[in-house]
Amino acid sequence: MSHGKQFTLYTHGSGPNGLKVIIVLEELSLTYESNYLDFNKNEQKSPAHVALNPNGRIPTLIDHANNDFVVWESNAILLYLVGKYDTTRKLSAEKFEEKVLQLQWLFFQASGQGHVWQIPYIGQAVWFKRYHHEKIPSAIERYQKETLRVLGVLDSVLSKQKWLVGDKCTIADLSFVTWNNYVIHDICTDINDVDVEKDFPALYKWHNALVSRGSVHKALAEREAFLAAQSQ
Amino acid sequence: MSHGKQFTLYTHGSGPNGLKVIIVLEELSLTYESNYLDFNKNEQKSPAHVALNPNGRIPTLIDHANNDFVVWESNAILLYLVGKYDTTRKLSAEKFEEKVLQLQWLFFQASGQGHVWQIPYIGQAVWFKRYHHEKIPSAIERYQKETLRVLGVLDSVLSKQKWLVGDKCTIADLSFVTWNNYVIHDICTDINDVDVEKDFPALYKWHNALVSRGSVHKALAEREAFLAAQSQ
Repeated sequence: MSHGKQFTLYTHGSGPNGLKVIIVLEELSLTYESNYLDFNKNEQKSPAHVALNPNGRIPTLIDHANNDFVVWESNAILLYLVGKYDTTRKLSAEKFEEKVLQLQWLFFQASGQGHVWQIPYIGQAVWFKRYHHEKIPSAIERYQKETLRVLGVLDSVLSKQKWLVGDKCTIADLSFVTWNNYVIHDICTDINDVDVEKDFPALYKWHNALVSRGSVHKALAEREAFLAAQSQ
Repeated sequence: MSHGKQFTLYTHGSGPNGLKVIIVLEELSLTYESNYLDFNKNEQKSPAHVALNPNGRIPTLIDHANNDFVVWESNAILLYLVGKYDTTRKLSAEKFEEKVLQLQWLFFQASGQGHVWQIPYIGQAVWFKRYHHEKIPSAIERYQKETLRVLGVLDSVLSKQKWLVGDKCTIADLSFVTWNNYVIHDICTDINDVDVEKDFPALYKWHNALVSRGSVHKALAEREAFLAAQSQ
């Protein structure tokens, strides 16, 4: 590590899971070097990266201040960061039961699921829409429906409380923001008869409160800069 | 709670995520009452269940010995159980960094993914194969390929170490067993040219070590009893 920052982050310029880590690093004022892997060159599957992360995906984080400790899976990274560096519990739960609820929402975010036969997964909607070489209307419809169901679950909870866990913004809330930004401004615009602000008012308000944070601005700006550099 | 047991578990008789919780309850010798929800009657979406679990899926756990504390998302439930009741760290990590790696594998298990554009998700393979009303060969092929990729990631790690975290079986390992049982004995039998024992020897050995545990036997027996009762 010649860059002099505390962390090295292997990420991708536009995906939500790397941005999620950047948001929490920014929230905690930690220094990091973003190392953008080129997926067109399959760099995430390179022997050097797979030696760090056998899953061959991003994000992967190295903490140079902790014997080069390596962790992957974005929500595990968030939990590592707050467990070790959020000593004042600025954005994480403190009480045992609240920590468990924080985990519950992080798993809900990561899997978008809870029952194995009804395949949810917001990511699917993106992929089916953009990349699948066959047109599969019923699959697209299914994933759009599931996307709205997940938004509905969040809205039902947030209509009764301001934050997912306790009385402050935690990593449980922040874990959703990059995905929801994409869902609200891309996926949902293609679904007929959906108006997120009107149909999911509590979710919409919560999402806007998250987006207004400096850390989220900075992460989204980093993404814009990356995309601008790519298109030159 | 008139059943006199410490926990009430809302589950489904045959799905892997409820069984996963039963395995850890058995490992910790905790008493529980399984409450099987009838998905044909949509009982998981009933107002009574959604009041406990806004996601309307299973498993959902209530701990009557802790002010009826409610938690859902199977891997959050496992972390709750070991955090509160595995005081001797029989099946959970103790050191901070190992706890983080335990989380990392639990998120990998829950999401089966780490990068948003390459949709994995073992569950998809099951669903596409069984329930989708259209035949979608490319989607089936994609999910079968992803299933094998996930098995390959596990095999690559387990060829260098006996357990996923530290030097003992933890909830990280146990979180995979019900899914892998299904994958090995059902999904993979339908994929051409795959021999799990030969192609993923370290994974196969690890899986068999997990299956030989009394807790896993008991959970699988509970499933068989449920299915037998259903078919009468």
